[in-house]
Amino acid sequence: MNDTFNQRLQKISIAKNSKLCIGLDIDPGKMPNHMDKSISGIESYLKETIDFTSDFCLAYKLNMAFYEQFGFKGYELMEKIVNYINKRNLTIADGKRGDIGNTTEKYAISIFDTIGFDAITVSPYMGSDSILPFVQNKEKGAFVLCLTSNTSAKEIQLFQKNGISLYEHIAILANDLNKNDNIGLVVGATKPDFMNKIRGLNSLPWLIPGIGAQGGDLEQSVTISNNNNSLGIINVSRAIIFAGDCTVDDINNAAKNYNNKINEYS
Amino acid sequence: MNDTFNQRLQKISIAKNSKLCIGLDIDPGKMPNHMDKSISGIESYLKETIDFTSDFCLAYKLNMAFYEQFGFKGYELMEKIVNYINKRNLTIADGKRGDIGNTTEKYAISIFDTIGFDAITVSPYMGSDSILPFVQNKEKGAFVLCLTSNTSAKEIQLFQKNGISLYEHIAILANDLNKNDNIGLVVGATKPDFMNKIRGLNSLPWLIPGIGAQGGDLEQSVTISNNNNSLGIINVSRAIIFAGDCTVDDINNAAKNYNNKINEYS
Repeated sequence: MNDTFNQRLQKISIAKNSKLCIGLDIDPGKMPNHMDKSISGIESYLKETIDFTSDFCLAYKLNMAFYEQFGFKGYELMEKIVNYINKRNLTIADGKRGDIGNTTEKYAISIFDTIGFDAITVSPYMGSDSILPFVQNKEKGAFVLCLTSNTSAKEIQLFQKNGISLYEHIAILANDLNKNDNIGLVVGATKPDFMNKIRGLNSLPWLIPGIGAQGGDLEQSVTISNNNNSLGIINVSRAIIFAGDCTVDDINNAAKNYNNKINEYS
Repeated sequence: MNDTFNQRLQKISIAKNSKLCIGLDIDPGKMPNHMDKSISGIESYLKETIDFTSDFCLAYKLNMAFYEQFGFKGYELMEKIVNYINKRNLTIADGKRGDIGNTTEKYAISIFDTIGFDAITVSPYMGSDSILPFVQNKEKGAFVLCLTSNTSAKEIQLFQKNGISLYEHIAILANDLNKNDNIGLVVGATKPDFMNKIRGLNSLPWLIPGIGAQGGDLEQSVTISNNNNSLGIINVSRAIIFAGDCTVDDINNAAKNYNNKINEYS
């Protein structure tokens, strides 16, 4: 029998000695002036970035907005990049998708079958309808937005029912729905008491954005997320793919350094 | 000075004598056997559908999942369809997007500038960061998910803070953010007491899915949404674009009938 998505995460993390996810959030505005900012220029840059970082990360996360800004050509680029990674690492579609069941089914086809991603990030405002179609295939995974580190997150995620905050409820709901061992949570690098509370609820793997350019605390995020034999995947985007002068050496060193630091703290 | 998005909605609704939005949610599985289900076949079907319904609706809503299921070719089809509508009607990207600010900005570029949609549907789980970048341009609009009619919506949307339910809070927040007169709400065709409560909070326009194949009550939705000189836009998808035998006559009649019924109830 094939491994579930969460088993794949664990196995590849051990094999690659990495809990690092690199966010391939391409942004022509952040590329040095001398670089080719056409779609094909960006494609070359991303492929080179992958070749020089693949050994030092568990997964790549593609923020879909950064590709969709170029229209269908950006969407095609996203498909090419997933294909280029070619199972060297896991691939996560960061699309925060989520809709009623019959629509979520179409997103699952798009992300998993058509493009071939291994996992997706999900926005749970419409409840379990937004999640279940993504987890029918055990080998593919869904990271459900739980608690995010942006300022306005508290406007929504701290609402309560029977003394339970919405973000805690999502952590519990996600665990209840995790029949196929392929659900994780998106937990931002935020206050330790919040992170500890979520980690105390279950041992689902976490995808943790907000490190690097966004300023979240790396040591704390690694320590809390890995408690109870759980897995915390640290996502770093800009601080790796736009490291230094964006040379392959700069990018390669940034990936190695982040990976080493995460492993030190683990 | 150019009209705001909400002014455009009102003016076009009056000019076309319509509060109907047609959901162009293409699904090869629902097309009759004899029809060409290739991308180009679907394109022809959609263009014909538009030509035979454009006079009887205010807007078209494209559910992005149904296009993305075909990968970049579906994304390109979506761009072609928006271009084909060519301002005869308003166009709504039903993508339930929403992320942190710098990512939402990229989605706004994608939806409004690159593709040329007039409005988008937004999932507010991350708070106002998920909304604000979509409403910087007064002429473009954002419909924020408020209360949806799917069964699992209640798992999230009925959470409370200080006696206010999350869906009510979203209605209030959306109104507070509506500085540019271009925000609306997505309110599913659900129980009248919920709908009345939301309509009592402000006069933002509503986009109302769940009518037709999904079984929501049309008369009640029209009546409540239009209270207080507000505008309720009724979305019908499958019951129009897959009406009868999918002939142009069937589709044309279904659009006319829905439009007439909505106008009777208004």
